[in-house]
Amino acid sequence: MNDVVLGVDIGGTNTKFALVDFNGTIYHQNEIPTNGNKSASDLIHRIYQIINPDFLIKSNYKLIGVGIGAPNGNYFTGMIQNPPNLNWSDLNIETLFERKFLCDVKLTNDANAAALGEKYFGIAKKIDHFIMITLGTGLGSGIISNKDLIYGYDGFAGELGHISIDPNGRECNCGKLGCLEMYVSAKGIKLTIDILLQENPENEFLKLINNQFDGKMIDDEYDKGNTIAENIYRYTGEKLGFGLAQAAIILNPEAFVFYGGLSKAGDRLFSFTADSMNNNLLQFQKGKIKLIPSALSDGKAGILGAASLILYEN
Amino acid sequence: MNDVVLGVDIGGTNTKFALVDFNGTIYHQNEIPTNGNKSASDLIHRIYQIINPDFLIKSNYKLIGVGIGAPNGNYFTGMIQNPPNLNWSDLNIETLFERKFLCDVKLTNDANAAALGEKYFGIAKKIDHFIMITLGTGLGSGIISNKDLIYGYDGFAGELGHISIDPNGRECNCGKLGCLEMYVSAKGIKLTIDILLQENPENEFLKLINNQFDGKMIDDEYDKGNTIAENIYRYTGEKLGFGLAQAAIILNPEAFVFYGGLSKAGDRLFSFTADSMNNNLLQFQKGKIKLIPSALSDGKAGILGAASLILYEN
Repeated sequence: MNDVVLGVDIGGTNTKFALVDFNGTIYHQNEIPTNGNKSASDLIHRIYQIINPDFLIKSNYKLIGVGIGAPNGNYFTGMIQNPPNLNWSDLNIETLFERKFLCDVKLTNDANAAALGEKYFGIAKKIDHFIMITLGTGLGSGIISNKDLIYGYDGFAGELGHISIDPNGRECNCGKLGCLEMYVSAKGIKLTIDILLQENPENEFLKLINNQFDGKMIDDEYDKGNTIAENIYRYTGEKLGFGLAQAAIILNPEAFVFYGGLSKAGDRLFSFTADSMNNNLLQFQKGKIKLIPSALSDGKAGILGAASLILYEN
Repeated sequence: MNDVVLGVDIGGTNTKFALVDFNGTIYHQNEIPTNGNKSASDLIHRIYQIINPDFLIKSNYKLIGVGIGAPNGNYFTGMIQNPPNLNWSDLNIETLFERKFLCDVKLTNDANAAALGEKYFGIAKKIDHFIMITLGTGLGSGIISNKDLIYGYDGFAGELGHISIDPNGRECNCGKLGCLEMYVSAKGIKLTIDILLQENPENEFLKLINNQFDGKMIDDEYDKGNTIAENIYRYTGEKLGFGLAQAAIILNPEAFVFYGGLSKAGDRLFSFTADSMNNNLLQFQKGKIKLIPSALSDGKAGILGAASLILYEN
């Protein structure tokens, strides 16, 4: 029998899961709608329809645990608390999975899971101090310091998306002003596009992406030399670099590792980011901190990191 | 023979040192001028004139090591690099002490030393996640996460005095704008007094403290209900609270512990600080993070923390 962990990456829209062995080999990767308007039990039931004792025995797997990464997932309590885009309020997801799968279950938040995925199986295997940045609808972060994930006092460390980069800045739905993710995330870029559209109301490209936001389209226009697309990434990169610098001044990491939709922009975004970060670092840090895109293909960092909660973090 | 460590807290003006045993009992505490315009060897020589083999044997002490806290002291390299107020450029202070005292020598920066002092012997013995804030000429910080000091990739973590709290803010001599210590430190308050004096050029109290800065005098005036003194602490507390909130959003500590001259203002400063911090935290953190003044008397946190580098950190 092959010892495996079920790694589950719960997202606002889709949930990805797979079986992972101690070598980080992924088997039977799946993706299903999260259906956050329904209950968490409904999601768990649909996962169980695919990964269940019959299937495991038939396939010669021994399930040794379930690792979960989820928005607002708390490692200490096993609770998902008011997850954005999920209509679940507060619930103990560990208990729900335990009852169904009858094995050890561990939870962390999605950005922490991605950080663990990179640390154990990805680009950061040899990096002991790094900050994982997930660029999706919002901006999440997971901090690895001296090889360990930083959870803080009650498990909520790493909310880098909510540091204020401007005390008079954009209003965030967390109630504060100038939160980094109001500039650097799909949500943030949409606001930037709104502002650019007010300045350039006749611009066809802006009208198009304002209507339907599409990172790939911005990349393509950037590559064609469209100055609007360049301005979008320059502005976003400047804000991201400023935010990363604040975190780096506090934590002195060797690298930032990027994952998630917006990070596919690659150097189009990260060249502006690096310039801005270096401008905002202390002298001795300038030019030394690496910005590294994840090398794990779509969804794998989250699944692998979630699985590593059982494989390595106990 | 009594095993002891020589704990040395090198400051810009004075250097404090003492012998410390495994219980944290302090013997023969001394304070001498650092004389930063002369060489580091000169300082070490003057310490050696007091703590030397003859004295140690006569007093029945066995010196098992020297622990040093110093501005810009680097735990990994043993180097003090361009220390502010000391004319030493870059030097390996560990080697200099080793040659003189012929024992194990460990170095860290002054704020990290204070954090270790609080952790092993002070108010933070039972706090596993806290950030030490030293409020002196500048603002230093040392981060304890999950019981360990965070050094980062090359030993320079914890430069909280240099996060920018306003991208258009006061110019710092590090070259950046809006550094926290340009608002919250003796240096920062002097700038605030300058501005208040421009608005109130005839105010006698402002003229007095502008001429000779004295925290005690601001405290006394505050206690008498002087609104200028109150404004100074309100403004400083607002900025400090905003900066602490950014660090707390990243690190999720249980407490901030304060040490150094300006922290003597106590609740005069920290009540404004707490209000501002809570206003700038995420919902789930509001009201939960403690602001705690050091309970170690003047100079002891630094000496004890430096000594603990040998006593406990090996």
